[in-house]
Amino acid sequence: ASVIPKAGEEDNTEIAAKCKTFMSPPCTDVKVLQQRKGEMSTRMEMLIMETQAEFCRALEEVDGGKFQVDRWERKEGGGGISCVLQDGKVFEKAGVNVSVVFGNLTEEAAKQMRSRGKVLKGKDGKLPFCAMGVSSVIHPKNPHVPTVHFNYRYFEIEEEDGTKQWWFGGGTDLTPTYINEEDAAQFHSVLKEACDKHHPQYYPDFKKWCDRYFYIRHRDETRGVGGIFFDDLDSPGQEEAFAFVKSCAETVVPCYLPIVWKHLDDAFSPEEKDWQQVRRGRYVEFNLVYDRGVKFGLATPGSRIESILMSLPLTAKWEYMHEPPKGTREAEMQEVLRNPREWV
Amino acid sequence: ASVIPKAGEEDNTEIAAKCKTFMSPPCTDVKVLQQRKGEMSTRMEMLIMETQAEFCRALEEVDGGKFQVDRWERKEGGGGISCVLQDGKVFEKAGVNVSVVFGNLTEEAAKQMRSRGKVLKGKDGKLPFCAMGVSSVIHPKNPHVPTVHFNYRYFEIEEEDGTKQWWFGGGTDLTPTYINEEDAAQFHSVLKEACDKHHPQYYPDFKKWCDRYFYIRHRDETRGVGGIFFDDLDSPGQEEAFAFVKSCAETVVPCYLPIVWKHLDDAFSPEEKDWQQVRRGRYVEFNLVYDRGVKFGLATPGSRIESILMSLPLTAKWEYMHEPPKGTREAEMQEVLRNPREWV
Repeated sequence: ASVIPKAGEEDNTEIAAKCKTFMSPPCTDVKVLQQRKGEMSTRMEMLIMETQAEFCRALEEVDGGKFQVDRWERKEGGGGISCVLQDGKVFEKAGVNVSVVFGNLTEEAAKQMRSRGKVLKGKDGKLPFCAMGVSSVIHPKNPHVPTVHFNYRYFEIEEEDGTKQWWFGGGTDLTPTYINEEDAAQFHSVLKEACDKHHPQYYPDFKKWCDRYFYIRHRDETRGVGGIFFDDLDSPGQEEAFAFVKSCAETVVPCYLPIVWKHLDDAFSPEEKDWQQVRRGRYVEFNLVYDRGVKFGLATPGSRIESILMSLPLTAKWEYMHEPPKGTREAEMQEVLRNPREWV
Repeated sequence: ASVIPKAGEEDNTEIAAKCKTFMSPPCTDVKVLQQRKGEMSTRMEMLIMETQAEFCRALEEVDGGKFQVDRWERKEGGGGISCVLQDGKVFEKAGVNVSVVFGNLTEEAAKQMRSRGKVLKGKDGKLPFCAMGVSSVIHPKNPHVPTVHFNYRYFEIEEEDGTKQWWFGGGTDLTPTYINEEDAAQFHSVLKEACDKHHPQYYPDFKKWCDRYFYIRHRDETRGVGGIFFDDLDSPGQEEAFAFVKSCAETVVPCYLPIVWKHLDDAFSPEEKDWQQVRRGRYVEFNLVYDRGVKFGLATPGSRIESILMSLPLTAKWEYMHEPPKGTREAEMQEVLRNPREWV
């Protein structure tokens, strides 16, 4: 006897089934997700949870270790799920974090959240908001396996008159210790392909934006070989923007894992490990001095510090006046960081 | 036949003789210092050079190594002398920096330089200024030898009508990996003694200021066991303020060196070294996220990055969710950082 599902039931079963594959039950109760399944906030929460699970499983497969999963709540509303694999076989520190937070923003804070500083009018100066995202930084042990970072996020703010402002942001970028042109080209071409499906200007624009954003001004060098970065994406429409973000989120495994598998057994010298540690120091400098997400997080009461600073490497080094001699592979890396290249 | 020196000649000989004991010729030409020997800027430059030399020699004596001395110039005016001893027997990284810079500030920048944000009126919005100081951070290898930091500085700004605004700032503070009450008490009592000679409120006020300033807000802990910190000191008069700063500068050796000699051969375990590396991570967090000097330096065009970031440790560590178990000496340290104590 076949049972014909009632309208909507099929979707609810699908949501429940998907939630079982996540690293942890989602931040929002499964029943609430089922009730609001058509809403963008639900679809995005499902996407970031799927991305987290997919990426963590792929990393566990290559490392052999298991992620520690911490669920945390934010007193002011919402919470998150932090997955960390520390001191593994392949990874020094791998963090994949999801957060879904909501509450009220002041007009000033709302303005700061948006890079194009739109003026938003709140009810008695308060703006109900919802922010969610998945973010990850992976620091491998082997200096020939690059560090990767990605972040995909969605914001909603309700104005006084009830209109909802929304936008997406995100990006994926690669930070190698040594230049490997093939890796950089492969990484960028996966991103370009995802971008090109949605708009021919996305890749060139967001590639440039990435080089500009991940720039360590006081060193006059970029953090790595870039990738894509975008913010305030609210066009052409919500469906299209979400479809683009979904395409990007689906690239995190194909962007990075082939590079890890390729180099995880590469031989390396103590000097190469040392140069990796110096580059890790620069990573810390960028994240603590310039990164908007980190700065916003550290300044926000009630934010979970351990999840924000999960992006810092396990170890880093600052050598006074470290300048690689000309003609070395270290100097070649620095040259690329000072003059960002086109990779595809 | 005795030669009676002409008026002023004796002082000039003294300046020339003193300059020979410095780590490098001073930033300002010796002849210029001699011509302007009565001016505060000259007296302060001599004091910071003497402090640098005295401290470096004392560290060289205990370490056995030699400081690398770099003289550098600032395109916009002035320069500095950076002394660094890296990977020594006793010290992981020891930096002692002098800088003497001058030029023009915008009214906005001038306001930011002063913590009490006085409004300063410049000629066509520009204010000729002169800033000089000695600063040092010493990171030892042995986790039972604490890190020390000090900085003594002087500013002069000339307003539109030719009046000179001036002020002193500075302080010395200690950052141990483990609490040693005797060391902390000895360190604070040397500072208190120097303060008490000048004003009974200096030590209690500047001790509190130090605890407030060296505070890592996102961790809710101080950087170390404190010391003294002051800024904008322009009272009761220039002579008195300079005499106080001189007394403080003269304490850097007696504050710190006895502690180094006492503990340099203390045995330590790999776990203790690990905790030191975690604390080093917090040191980096404070310096990159909160330190006004570092932030000002990184944002100032033409500043010498290597000298500003000399304060960062050679190595540091960020372990996810590192929380020392109750009852351990690590937990005791953290407890003190969360609840600053009175040491004398």
